[in-house]
Amino acid sequence: MTPHRTIARLSLYRRLLRQADREGVQNLFSHELAKMAGATAAQVRRDITFVGHSGSPTRGYDVRELLDSIGTTLDAGQRQPVALVGVGNLGRAILAFFHGRHPNLAIVAAFDADPHKAGRVIHGCRCYPMEQMAEVVKGEGITVGVVAVPAEAAQQVTDTLVRAGVRGILNFAPTPLRASGGVFVEDIDMTMALEKVAYFARQDRS
Amino acid sequence: MTPHRTIARLSLYRRLLRQADREGVQNLFSHELAKMAGATAAQVRRDITFVGHSGSPTRGYDVRELLDSIGTTLDAGQRQPVALVGVGNLGRAILAFFHGRHPNLAIVAAFDADPHKAGRVIHGCRCYPMEQMAEVVKGEGITVGVVAVPAEAAQQVTDTLVRAGVRGILNFAPTPLRASGGVFVEDIDMTMALEKVAYFARQDRS
Repeated sequence: MTPHRTIARLSLYRRLLRQADREGVQNLFSHELAKMAGATAAQVRRDITFVGHSGSPTRGYDVRELLDSIGTTLDAGQRQPVALVGVGNLGRAILAFFHGRHPNLAIVAAFDADPHKAGRVIHGCRCYPMEQMAEVVKGEGITVGVVAVPAEAAQQVTDTLVRAGVRGILNFAPTPLRASGGVFVEDIDMTMALEKVAYFARQDRS
Repeated sequence: MTPHRTIARLSLYRRLLRQADREGVQNLFSHELAKMAGATAAQVRRDITFVGHSGSPTRGYDVRELLDSIGTTLDAGQRQPVALVGVGNLGRAILAFFHGRHPNLAIVAAFDADPHKAGRVIHGCRCYPMEQMAEVVKGEGITVGVVAVPAEAAQQVTDTLVRAGVRGILNFAPTPLRASGGVFVEDIDMTMALEKVAYFARQDRS
């Protein structure tokens, strides 16, 4: 089982490498990539070894080749469709944010308890009533779910997604989710994050 | 210096306690709160001790009293105004999400490089041109910044915020930020989180 942090760092390296590539950089040493990523060079080399890649001692990593290697590990070889549940302010923002960003990892269906949203297309994504969740998720072969409903509704939504075949959940609802059977859950709690930042902003740490 | 995770958990306990309070629950034992939070009872008791509170062995914690104690630790006694930089899709979503949510922790000023946004009020928040950032941040006594600009612009924005007096930053830009002088930075990277979920959704972990 791959450590979560390795995957998160590979994702970060990829974005830094794409940026470097756009700026015309062809080669990077591990210590250079480490500095950009806020990691150590040893950590970078371990992570890169994980994707089966190695650099040249004299020229470092070839930026484009390394991008390919990371992509092979991080990306599905094929389309991996995503479902979003909850099309409130946050859900719409998530749709807008991911729209067109990730060809293989597109949000292809959104669900909301508000019947007025059913049938609409918001930021390129079709909305369905909650009742159709299991059917659409199965039909589209969706394995990734994004939960953006209020805390009270989040567990029930999760249970429905998992029963319909979802294997990984990105949870924006401010509550911990239980998911069984090896389903992976990653939480993003924006309120908690802002409270934490505000707390530490009040401490004298200089 | 308080551990980051303690603060994050207190924030979570608070939301769970508020939910319990709405449901009419008056007392909770540490093991009950622990179960709701996905923590251990010992962890909960340590965290609660940190806010100077203790429960009764026979009745557990008084929900409302514990809410007060956590609030005293987590919340500023007074208003702690927040600035947002970057009013694109994500920035607007952040404004919508936090609008009216936190009386003491309101986003009072937003900044964008697009001059057409200056002077507008979006989700209750006034937008200013980037050039006025230092002036407005100082003038409003803002100590918390939310960075929602593209990766390329994030470091410069951070430097300006910190020079103007910001002591904590919630960073949505997909790049690591350098902030000196004890400034606290918390990162939320939605792309990285979704890639990670998708990766683990593809693994067979059942």
